[in-house]
Amino acid sequence: MKLYDAPFAPNARRVRIFLAEKGVSIPSVEIDLARLEQRSPAFTALNPFQRVPALELDDGTVIAESVAICRYIDELHPAPPMFGLDALDRALIEMWQRRLELSLFYPVTQAFRHSHPAMKVMESTQIAQWAEVNKARAIEAMALVDKALGARPFIAGERFSIADVTGLVALDFAKPARIAISEEFANLRRWREALAARPSAKA
Amino acid sequence: MKLYDAPFAPNARRVRIFLAEKGVSIPSVEIDLARLEQRSPAFTALNPFQRVPALELDDGTVIAESVAICRYIDELHPAPPMFGLDALDRALIEMWQRRLELSLFYPVTQAFRHSHPAMKVMESTQIAQWAEVNKARAIEAMALVDKALGARPFIAGERFSIADVTGLVALDFAKPARIAISEEFANLRRWREALAARPSAKA
Repeated sequence: MKLYDAPFAPNARRVRIFLAEKGVSIPSVEIDLARLEQRSPAFTALNPFQRVPALELDDGTVIAESVAICRYIDELHPAPPMFGLDALDRALIEMWQRRLELSLFYPVTQAFRHSHPAMKVMESTQIAQWAEVNKARAIEAMALVDKALGARPFIAGERFSIADVTGLVALDFAKPARIAISEEFANLRRWREALAARPSAKA
Repeated sequence: MKLYDAPFAPNARRVRIFLAEKGVSIPSVEIDLARLEQRSPAFTALNPFQRVPALELDDGTVIAESVAICRYIDELHPAPPMFGLDALDRALIEMWQRRLELSLFYPVTQAFRHSHPAMKVMESTQIAQWAEVNKARAIEAMALVDKALGARPFIAGERFSIADVTGLVALDFAKPARIAISEEFANLRRWREALAARPSAKA
């Protein structure tokens, strides 16, 4: 197996954290996003959607999309379970992974892509107003997650899951996106600190 | 169980098609999106993220997010399998479900929400330029899906899956979003016609 990785890409980091939590190591190849290597003919042949990360299997099959790669790794290395243990657990983890991705991770990355000068190369039509809408949405999502967390250790319950990975990466990416995490969100900040203290967060 | 549904919402339709394919019927309650009933105190108590669909279980647990609901139904009613049969199959279905959702479904719905006058009530900051960017992205995604499909009957291989549901709903929603599906995309059109001919498409 070979993992196509990129050091600063939040989606690539989701896979690295997941692998670290599983204690799994996969040889990786770095794709230089700043030089648009993801659009090169060689990488496009691997993933026509031109996105990193991508996992190439020994028979040449390519699994693209961060969560699809994580799910595959979870099937090969079931312990610790990070997609849930039974039907309801799996559904609630999927629900939280999606809520965090669509309502927090996505707005944070959109705010960054549509406001940071360095992103002009990837986001040819940067729309300042869209960045602002997404900053506001990210903060709304932080408020909802803060409330939902309450005193729970992890977003989907008592166990660390793929949803926590998405949450940590989104919150860490709020800094380059210039979205402050309000002091008011005490549960959210406690959750983030606990996730950031895990060895996997260095990935 | 009780399904909170909305007739014109594409995410709600994904669940209805999925249930029809499974031959499962769940009593439903209609949420009137045009009147913003999803933001009412009663619905917000069920789903603080104020999105439809949502599935309320008999013990009061709420599963929100279309794909999370489908995954739960798939666990309760495994036949026919629509999330894959083994590790690789499940990963490739997840990959295609995500590609179709993020690269096609999402741009199509964004184009609609940011251009249609009736959407002003839900999308308070409509950005015409963002609608245009997303129209172009949806067409790019159609080209990639057309090429990937080739002569395959379904997007993730030989079996109908959740990814096909997402694809059909996205392509059907291209019409209200005013995005034409080019005659040039012959594989895509054949795929869509075959999906649209299944009884579940009426859901």
